[in-house]
Amino acid sequence: MASNSFGDIFRITTWGESHGKAIGVVIDGCPAGLDIDEAEINVALARRAPGKAYTTPRVETDNAEIFSGVFEGKTTGTPISIIIKNKDADSSQYATIKNLLRPGHANYTYIEKYGLFDYRGGGRASARETACRVAAGAIATKILRHYQIEIVAYIKSIGAVNATELPEALPALRTATEASPLFCPDEKACAQMRLDITAASQSGDSLGGVIEFRVEHLPAGLGDPVYEKLEANLAKAMLGLPATKGFEIGEGFHAALMQGSTHNDAFVTGQEGIRTQTNRAGGTLGGISTGMPLIGRVAFKPTSSIKKPQETVDLTGKAAVFQLPETARHDPCVAIRAVPIVEAMCALVLVDALLRNRCIRLG
Amino acid sequence: MASNSFGDIFRITTWGESHGKAIGVVIDGCPAGLDIDEAEINVALARRAPGKAYTTPRVETDNAEIFSGVFEGKTTGTPISIIIKNKDADSSQYATIKNLLRPGHANYTYIEKYGLFDYRGGGRASARETACRVAAGAIATKILRHYQIEIVAYIKSIGAVNATELPEALPALRTATEASPLFCPDEKACAQMRLDITAASQSGDSLGGVIEFRVEHLPAGLGDPVYEKLEANLAKAMLGLPATKGFEIGEGFHAALMQGSTHNDAFVTGQEGIRTQTNRAGGTLGGISTGMPLIGRVAFKPTSSIKKPQETVDLTGKAAVFQLPETARHDPCVAIRAVPIVEAMCALVLVDALLRNRCIRLG
Amino acid sequence: MASNSFGDIFRITTWGESHGKAIGVVIDGCPAGLDIDEAEINVALARRAPGKAYTTPRVETDNAEIFSGVFEGKTTGTPISIIIKNKDADSSQYATIKNLLRPGHANYTYIEKYGLFDYRGGGRASARETACRVAAGAIATKILRHYQIEIVAYIKSIGAVNATELPEALPALRTATEASPLFCPDEKACAQMRLDITAASQSGDSLGGVIEFRVEHLPAGLGDPVYEKLEANLAKAMLGLPATKGFEIGEGFHAALMQGSTHNDAFVTGQEGIRTQTNRAGGTLGGISTGMPLIGRVAFKPTSSIKKPQETVDLTGKAAVFQLPETARHDPCVAIRAVPIVEAMCALVLVDALLRNRCIRLG
Amino acid sequence: MASNSFGDIFRITTWGESHGKAIGVVIDGCPAGLDIDEAEINVALARRAPGKAYTTPRVETDNAEIFSGVFEGKTTGTPISIIIKNKDADSSQYATIKNLLRPGHANYTYIEKYGLFDYRGGGRASARETACRVAAGAIATKILRHYQIEIVAYIKSIGAVNATELPEALPALRTATEASPLFCPDEKACAQMRLDITAASQSGDSLGGVIEFRVEHLPAGLGDPVYEKLEANLAKAMLGLPATKGFEIGEGFHAALMQGSTHNDAFVTGQEGIRTQTNRAGGTLGGISTGMPLIGRVAFKPTSSIKKPQETVDLTGKAAVFQLPETARHDPCVAIRAVPIVEAMCALVLVDALLRNRCIRLG
Repeated sequence: MASNSFGDIFRITTWGESHGKAIGVVIDGCPAGLDIDEAEINVALARRAPGKAYTTPRVETDNAEIFSGVFEGKTTGTPISIIIKNKDADSSQYATIKNLLRPGHANYTYIEKYGLFDYRGGGRASARETACRVAAGAIATKILRHYQIEIVAYIKSIGAVNATELPEALPALRTATEASPLFCPDEKACAQMRLDITAASQSGDSLGGVIEFRVEHLPAGLGDPVYEKLEANLAKAMLGLPATKGFEIGEGFHAALMQGSTHNDAFVTGQEGIRTQTNRAGGTLGGISTGMPLIGRVAFKPTSSIKKPQETVDLTGKAAVFQLPETARHDPCVAIRAVPIVEAMCALVLVDALLRNRCIRLG
Repeated sequence: MASNSFGDIFRITTWGESHGKAIGVVIDGCPAGLDIDEAEINVALARRAPGKAYTTPRVETDNAEIFSGVFEGKTTGTPISIIIKNKDADSSQYATIKNLLRPGHANYTYIEKYGLFDYRGGGRASARETACRVAAGAIATKILRHYQIEIVAYIKSIGAVNATELPEALPALRTATEASPLFCPDEKACAQMRLDITAASQSGDSLGGVIEFRVEHLPAGLGDPVYEKLEANLAKAMLGLPATKGFEIGEGFHAALMQGSTHNDAFVTGQEGIRTQTNRAGGTLGGISTGMPLIGRVAFKPTSSIKKPQETVDLTGKAAVFQLPETARHDPCVAIRAVPIVEAMCALVLVDALLRNRCIRLG
Repeated sequence: MASNSFGDIFRITTWGESHGKAIGVVIDGCPAGLDIDEAEINVALARRAPGKAYTTPRVETDNAEIFSGVFEGKTTGTPISIIIKNKDADSSQYATIKNLLRPGHANYTYIEKYGLFDYRGGGRASARETACRVAAGAIATKILRHYQIEIVAYIKSIGAVNATELPEALPALRTATEASPLFCPDEKACAQMRLDITAASQSGDSLGGVIEFRVEHLPAGLGDPVYEKLEANLAKAMLGLPATKGFEIGEGFHAALMQGSTHNDAFVTGQEGIRTQTNRAGGTLGGISTGMPLIGRVAFKPTSSIKKPQETVDLTGKAAVFQLPETARHDPCVAIRAVPIVEAMCALVLVDALLRNRCIRLG
Repeated sequence: MASNSFGDIFRITTWGESHGKAIGVVIDGCPAGLDIDEAEINVALARRAPGKAYTTPRVETDNAEIFSGVFEGKTTGTPISIIIKNKDADSSQYATIKNLLRPGHANYTYIEKYGLFDYRGGGRASARETACRVAAGAIATKILRHYQIEIVAYIKSIGAVNATELPEALPALRTATEASPLFCPDEKACAQMRLDITAASQSGDSLGGVIEFRVEHLPAGLGDPVYEKLEANLAKAMLGLPATKGFEIGEGFHAALMQGSTHNDAFVTGQEGIRTQTNRAGGTLGGISTGMPLIGRVAFKPTSSIKKPQETVDLTGKAAVFQLPETARHDPCVAIRAVPIVEAMCALVLVDALLRNRCIRLG
C-alpha cells in the first residue's frame, strides 16, 4: 500500500519535495556487515548530477549524509537513513505559473487526486526524487558486487539516432559509457545525438530516448512466479520512473515479429555448464533468471518542460498560455540523466530478488 | 513477498498446476454487497477457452465453482474462493520429454530455483494459471462497471500484420473485437492474420503479436506516486503474464522518437470540464489517471511450444533433440487467447487503484 | 491489507464459512523439497476435532485434501492448496435466530461492517476457520522439526483451577498433555477441571481458560526489531484467534509486580555456551529470541454460546430473548479445543521468523 | 517484511539510534488536507519527555522538524518526514560496558542476530525510538479527532499499587491523568506509587507497571477478520513496545475466570441505538469494533537498567559483573513514560483501521 516504498526485503522509502528542505531515503532490510560510507554514495549521485553535457544547468552538488544504520563503517541491520539537502530552492519563479496546468506534467493529476499541490518545482512529482533512488541503489549495487553481479545502463537511442556499435564485454561497455558525455557507448552515434540535442535545445524543444541495461553474472533462479517475475518487477521499477513510457526485455516488442523457431533459445552445454546458445529471451524464462545476461530497455518521452509557449488552461479552466520562466531549468533530453537511475532501479530489483531467493528451499 | 498474490486491497491468490486436480483463486478484499454468480464468471472463462479459431485444441470447458464469500447471491466481504477443476489431464505424453530442457520454457529455471519441477504440462508455469486471473477479473470488471468504467482489449498485430482500421468508440471497438475469431477488430487485417497463422501452423511454427487495451470513464486521480504509479502497476501486471516481452503506455516506445512540443498534450476546457486535446500520454500524468482514455500495449513472443524439432540438452547437460509429442496441444499464437487475460489484469489493477483511492483524503 | 492472510514469507490465506461447501487454505512460500502428505495433516486436524471430552458433539471428521503444490510427495515451492469439505451443514436451525443479535458473537459487528452476514453457524466468524490454521500449522511444524524446533501447548487453567504440576522436559510435557482428555498435563488439576466443566455444562453455562505454550531449541536471533518483534507477532497471532482476550510472554502481567533485580535474567556460560540462568523473559530480549525456551500464555473467554436464555435485541433494535436451538452444538470451554490451534499459530509465526532470518546478513 | 514500519495505509517507518545524529519517522499514506504544524508534534513529544517526576534525568527537549509532506500548513498526501535531532550523545560512558551482555537488554540478541551491535545507549533497541512513534501518533490523533474519536491512556498500576478510583467520563479521566506527575488519575494511589518508586530508586532497583487505555466514539465496524482483528493489531502494536510483557482487552485474563452468562454483554437499545448493557468485551466482537469504548491494558516489566550490580558474562562468555556507569540515565519505572507511547500506538492502529474500512463496501 505504501506508495513511496519499493522492494520487499531490501525496502526503500523515499520522501521529500524538490523545493523542500531536503529529500531522503530510508533503507530497511539491508543486510548487516556491509562496508559503506558516504563517499561511495556521493560518487553515485555525482553521475546523476548535471556535470554531464546538455542537462539542466541547476547547480546541485548533492551531498548524501548517513544518519543511521551504519556503525563504525558497517551496516548494522537497522534502517539506513540518508538525507540530501536541497540547495538551490528559489521558488519565486513559480509564482507566475502556479495556477496553470502544465502540459505533460503532474500538477493537474495531483490536484485532482489530493485537492492541493506543492507547485514549487514539481514538488514530489519532480525527478529530484530519483536522487534518493540512486543513493539507495549505490548500496544495492555494492551488495550485488559482493556476489560478482554487475550492471551497466547506457543510452541506446536519442530521437532517431541509435547506438549500434556497442562493445560486447560488460567492462568495455561500461568504460565506453563512462567516457561519453551522454552515457552513450557508441562514439559515432553520440556525436550525432549531440547535434540533434543542440538543435532541439536551440528551438526550445526536447527529445526522447531509450536506455538499455545489461546485467551479468546473475545466478539462475532469481524471480518468483507467478506475480513476482523478475521482468515484472523490473517493469514496475522502470515505469515508476518519471517520463517513462515503455519497458521491454530481451527482444521485447520485436519478439512479436518473430517466429517460435527463430525466437526460442537452444540449450547447450558449455564450459560453465548449461546455458543458451542465443539470448533472445533476455535472461529469464518463466520469470526466473536463466544465468544468461539480463537485458532490457526503457523508453523515455521527450522532456515535458520546454521553452516553447504551450496552450493550456488555468485551475479554473480558463484558456491560457504556459511559458516556462526564463530562469527555469531546462533539460533537453531527460533520458540522459536517467541512465544512473535505471541502473539504480535495476540494482534495487535484483538485490531484493537475491535476498528473497534465500527462503525457497530447506536449509 | 507472497509471489502468487496480486493486488493490495482487492487481492487475489492463485494456486494449482496444469495437470493437478484443479486450479483456483482466492479473492480477499472484494467489497460486500456485489451481486455475483458463477454464470458470469463462466462467460468470462469461455472467452479465454479454445472455441476461438487457431488456438489449442485441448477440450477445456472451464467451469468455475464459488466455494465461499457469496451468500444469497451477494458478496459478503469475506474471501471468495473459486475453484476450476482440471478435466483433460493425461500426462503420460510428458514421460518422454520430462528430462529435457524445453527451449523457451520454464522447466530449466524452476529446477534451478526449486531443485525439482512438476513437468506435467508446464506445472505451475503453464498458462493454465491465467484462467484464475480471468475468473477474478470477471468480478473486478463487475465492480468497475458499477462505476461505469469499461475495458476492451484486442489484437493490435500478429507477426507483421497490424490492425489499423479501428472503430473509435469503445462499444463499437468491443463489438468488432467480439465478432472476430482472433479478437481483432480490423476485419481486413484479421483476414491476413488468419492466413499467416495457418502458414505458421502448417510449418510447425508460431507467431508473436501485440495486444492493445483501452479503458474509458476512468476517473482522474487513480494511481499512487511514486512507486505505485498506475502504469507501473499495469506494467507489472502485464509482464507477469506468460510469454510477454514488453509493455508500453500511450505513445510508448514511439514517444522516444518525438519532441516535447509534439508529444505534450495541451489542456483544454470542453463540455465535461478540463481534458487534454490529444492523448499521447495514454491516460496518465505523473502516474495518476487524467480522466482521458487509458491506452497501452503488451508484446507477446511467438509460442514457445512448436512442432519443429529443436536442439537442447537433458537435465545432465547431454545434447538432445526436443520434439513435442504428436498429441500435445499446440497454439500457433498465444497472443490471441491472451486478449481476455490482458483485460482481466487491467481490471484487477484498476479496481485496486480505485479502492486505494478512497483513503487519500479526509472524509 | 489482505485480512485473511497471515505471515510474510510462509504466508497462509484461508477461506470458507462454517456452513459453506468447504473451507480451505492456500500456503504460499513453503520451501520446496519438504516431504508432506495428507495423512500428516489429518492427524493434526484430528487433535482439534471433538473426539476429546467435553467439546462440541458435532460430527466433523475433517479430511484435508491437497490440491496443489505437492508433486511426487514433495513440496515444489508453488502454492499448496488444502481443502476441507464441510460435512454437517444443516443450517435450518438458524432460521429462528437469524435476526437476533447474539450476545458475545460477531453477527452484530459483521452487519455493521459489511451490511450483511452469513448467519449460518457463525459464517466466517466461526471457529471452524481455525481448522485451516491447524492444517497449515502441520506443515509449518514439520519445517520446524527439520530444524529440531519443538512446540507444545497445553491447558494452564480452566476457570479457577490451575495446572501447577507440570513435567519440566518438553517431551514429558507433551506426553502428559496428549494423555489428558483436556490437553492438561497436570492430572490432578485435570480431574477438578472436569468436574467444573460438567457443572457448568449442566447449568447451560460455560468456562474460560488459559493456554500456555513452550518452544524449545529455537535458535537465538529470530524476530525483527522494532515492529516485527517475535512476541509482537505471537501476540497478533493469538489475539487473532476467536475468543481470546489476552496474551503474555515470560512473566507477563506478573512482571509488572516484580523489581528489576528480581526480573532480570543473569547471563551465564554453560555447556552449550551463553544462556541465562533463569528465563523470566520467556525467551526473547528486544523482540529477538535468546535461544532459551519461548514461553507464553493466551487467555480465552468462556464460550459465548450458552444454553441459558439471554437478553438481546433483534436487527431492528426490538428487545428479544436469545435462546440457542436445542440441537445446536455447545462447547462448554472453547479453550480446550484451542490447544492445537495455539500450537499451529506458534508454528506459523516461528517458521516465518526463521525464513525471514536468512536475509539479514551477507551470505 | 520491512520490520521498521508499522501500519498498512497510514504507514510509519522509523529510523535512528539513541546516540546517532538524529532519529526520524516517515509517514506514508497520511490523507491530504490535514492542518498540521511542528508545534503540535512537539507538545506530544513533551509529554513523553522527562519533565515528569521520577523518570530519567537525561536532558532531552525533543524538537521535531517536518522536512516534507506539508505545504502551506496542510498535508499534501506525500510522505511526511519528521526528524528529531539527538542532543545529549556522549557515549564515552559506554566504553567500559561495551563488551558485557546487559541483563534484560537486547545487546546479546542483536549480536547473535546481526553479528554486531551499536552499543551506545542501546542503539536501535533503545526506547529513544519511541519518540518517533509519538510524533507520528500526534498526527494520527489529529485525524481521529477529526472524526471525534478520543484516546486516553494512564497508569493502572505500579508494582502492587492499583489505581481504582477512576473518573468515568473520558474528559475527566484525561484531566486527572494530566494533573498527575505519574499519569495516574487516582490521586491516592498515585501518592503511594511515588513512595514505592522512591524506595525502589534509592535501593538502585526498579518497578513494573500496567497501563490502561480507553477509546471513545469509535464507530462500529473497524477491524478486519480474521487475521487483522482490531485487538490483534493492538496486541502487536503494544508487544512491539520496549519492556512490554503482556496485552489484554476488556476483561482480559480475568475473563478466563468468568462464566459465559456473566461475561457476555447483553444487547440493548438505548437513545443512541443498539449498544451493549455492559462492556466486558472491551469494545470488539469478532475482532470488529462494536461502538462501545475500546478498553485494554499493557504490562511493562520493571526497568532492566538498574543501579545494582548484576552478574553477567562478556562477549567471550567470561563471567563479569555488570555495573551501570554512575552517570548513566536511570528510570525507576519505564511504564510511566510509556503512557503517551501507548496512546500513540493506539492512535496508529485506529487510524489505519479507519482508513482501511473505507474500502469494504461499494461506494
